[in-house]
Amino acid sequence: MSARFLMVSPHTRAVKGDDKIFAINQAAQEAVKKVGAENVVNATIGALLDDHGKLSVLPTMIDLLKNLPPEEFAAYAPIGGVPRFLEAAKKSAFRDCFPEGYIEAMATPGGTGAIRNTIRNYSAPGDSILTSDWYWSPYHTIADEHDRKIETYSLFNEKNEFHLDAFEQKIDALLRKQEQLVILLNAPAHNPTGYSPSIDEWEAIMNILKKAVQNKHKKIILFVDAAYIDFAGETNECRAFMKYFSHLPQNILVIIGFSMSKSYTLYGMRSGAAIAISSSKEVVDEFKMISQYSNRGVWSNGTRPAMIVLAQVFENPDLLAKVDAERAAFSNLLFERANAFIENAKKVNLDICPYKAGFFITVPCENAEEAAKELQNDFIFAVPIGRGIRFAVSAVPKEKCAQAPEKFVKAIRK
Amino acid sequence: MSARFLMVSPHTRAVKGDDKIFAINQAAQEAVKKVGAENVVNATIGALLDDHGKLSVLPTMIDLLKNLPPEEFAAYAPIGGVPRFLEAAKKSAFRDCFPEGYIEAMATPGGTGAIRNTIRNYSAPGDSILTSDWYWSPYHTIADEHDRKIETYSLFNEKNEFHLDAFEQKIDALLRKQEQLVILLNAPAHNPTGYSPSIDEWEAIMNILKKAVQNKHKKIILFVDAAYIDFAGETNECRAFMKYFSHLPQNILVIIGFSMSKSYTLYGMRSGAAIAISSSKEVVDEFKMISQYSNRGVWSNGTRPAMIVLAQVFENPDLLAKVDAERAAFSNLLFERANAFIENAKKVNLDICPYKAGFFITVPCENAEEAAKELQNDFIFAVPIGRGIRFAVSAVPKEKCAQAPEKFVKAIRK
Repeated sequence: MSARFLMVSPHTRAVKGDDKIFAINQAAQEAVKKVGAENVVNATIGALLDDHGKLSVLPTMIDLLKNLPPEEFAAYAPIGGVPRFLEAAKKSAFRDCFPEGYIEAMATPGGTGAIRNTIRNYSAPGDSILTSDWYWSPYHTIADEHDRKIETYSLFNEKNEFHLDAFEQKIDALLRKQEQLVILLNAPAHNPTGYSPSIDEWEAIMNILKKAVQNKHKKIILFVDAAYIDFAGETNECRAFMKYFSHLPQNILVIIGFSMSKSYTLYGMRSGAAIAISSSKEVVDEFKMISQYSNRGVWSNGTRPAMIVLAQVFENPDLLAKVDAERAAFSNLLFERANAFIENAKKVNLDICPYKAGFFITVPCENAEEAAKELQNDFIFAVPIGRGIRFAVSAVPKEKCAQAPEKFVKAIRK
Repeated sequence: MSARFLMVSPHTRAVKGDDKIFAINQAAQEAVKKVGAENVVNATIGALLDDHGKLSVLPTMIDLLKNLPPEEFAAYAPIGGVPRFLEAAKKSAFRDCFPEGYIEAMATPGGTGAIRNTIRNYSAPGDSILTSDWYWSPYHTIADEHDRKIETYSLFNEKNEFHLDAFEQKIDALLRKQEQLVILLNAPAHNPTGYSPSIDEWEAIMNILKKAVQNKHKKIILFVDAAYIDFAGETNECRAFMKYFSHLPQNILVIIGFSMSKSYTLYGMRSGAAIAISSSKEVVDEFKMISQYSNRGVWSNGTRPAMIVLAQVFENPDLLAKVDAERAAFSNLLFERANAFIENAKKVNLDICPYKAGFFITVPCENAEEAAKELQNDFIFAVPIGRGIRFAVSAVPKEKCAQAPEKFVKAIRK
């Protein structure tokens, strides 16, 4: 927008008007009208679609919703969330991998609300929030909305592994300037690259944090954005890293961002939680109190029916098994599509970011804007994100995933 | 909470831990266990309950929800809200009383989200937000969460009418210190007093605002929190004041806080909107852009199924008539209860704030904390709010409403 404000308070941040993903998605839909859906690859959408372009929905979740008594749609949830839901959210986040320590969950609208509360309460205005150079762009919006900045480290080293040195250097540099540091770590199945740190990398990450807070005046708040965790591989294998959240020094607080959007295909119900893990009871009590205050002061309470159905799932092993089985079918489909893309990328020597799991594959390239435009001539619609292009395997049938890499090579070379 | 913070950033505000309403509600529920529901008056709850203490729910809204296709529960809504919903929200807010001007609606989680975005975007940190001395306490929390202060004017003059002089003086004083001023006006059917300004008072209110912004460097943002409007009397009669929102100077922006919580008994679905009215297209375009940015930077998007069912209601006159009829029955019940309280208050010479409509009656008294405690000995549970006690007629059967005033007199005199 222009620098001149009309009624908006002049202190407010500069706002870019256009939503890029929305615009490209629109272009894809117009292409469908012209040349037919079978000839268009719409890889913009961050949701799981079936091979016919229809949203994949876990049928059991919908059945549960439709069977709720009227009061469960109508009544307010408590400000911090329905207690049964908070227990279920913890179980869903950790499954068999509960870390040892004090754990408290507070309801938030999706994962976004959990990020917002963490930034508001655990950093100061003007602070830098640390995340990787490949990042989900709303991190910037959330930080900016709260007068914070985003600082980044290189996610990958030259071997395409987690860049531990870059991570450590940035933490040290920021902790020289700030007393507290919020780190947003989108894992496992990182958006937009699909990366998951290995178990050894997780150990190294946590050791870096422990070293950084040996100065007891410094605090690190590690926010693990686990929005895609239920599409990151075998349930407990992909959660094995959570053991490293046990017995941390008191000045490291881990907060898991839990979301029902992807894991339970209830994107539209806006239900999630922030889950705090600490070796100190006082720290999680403080978390609970401050989170309730923030909830009350921003959006009040959360979507009750979504909370109730998650509670029902985790109170009934048969229901949980059913939901897990339904989701596993979607997850397998996702892996098949990603593998189709990856195998064909290898064949045509297309460099991609090291994908392990998740909804997106990212193709690094310097001319992303131009290449993404060029791809549209082949009716491939994907999102340029700085130094790369994000391709949503979640939204594209396997066959089209297999055909895309060759067209990427052509578009990038142009 | 203590002044010492553990992990929370030290810049953050002082947070009071206890939720008073919750605590008194708990006490009421314990009393029910001891002496039976028939002997307990739980007047703490800000929701409409039937005479058996069960939440009153509009059956048509639940039917519509249960008949939605799975995708309408599952899919994300656009960041600004589903367009059909935004049209419906405008129609619901204005009914036959659309003001003339440019009007844009943006989805928010309930009315709270609309207040939050208005304060964030139309005032600066440190600013004072103006509201009446009787006010819904979360206004303070929302302001505090965003580093703003609440300043108040006396709502009532000695004749128990809207205190126009106090209102004008405070506006003038604040506009000497600030360039912009956000005013939160909870009307009609004010929470907690039940007051609605008369049509003449509305005209005078708007004239005060117009006078205050004759200095073109000053801006007023009038936020009309209309959460209770559908329980404020005849549909269009209680909206007649909206004509005064037409043709305002460009430096007055009116934003209506629309909520589905009370009007559609979907408290738990967290669906509302901020609706901006301006004589300037640029101002409402700016509103739209900044609101979308804030949505993305705080809670992302809104609850889709709630949006869809509101759209359905306003796209089908038969459905709307049905919902209106269902709500009218609840509204009549509410008026009967309030009248029972008011008539008996007169009989026993109990002073109450000038109630016109809505969920609450407020009894002013200097010793509110002590008197509210004293009332609990008679198994009446109501909420002390500074210089008065709030009694939720929305939650108490008519007969008990009739009996309460006598006990108030006794408790206050003690």
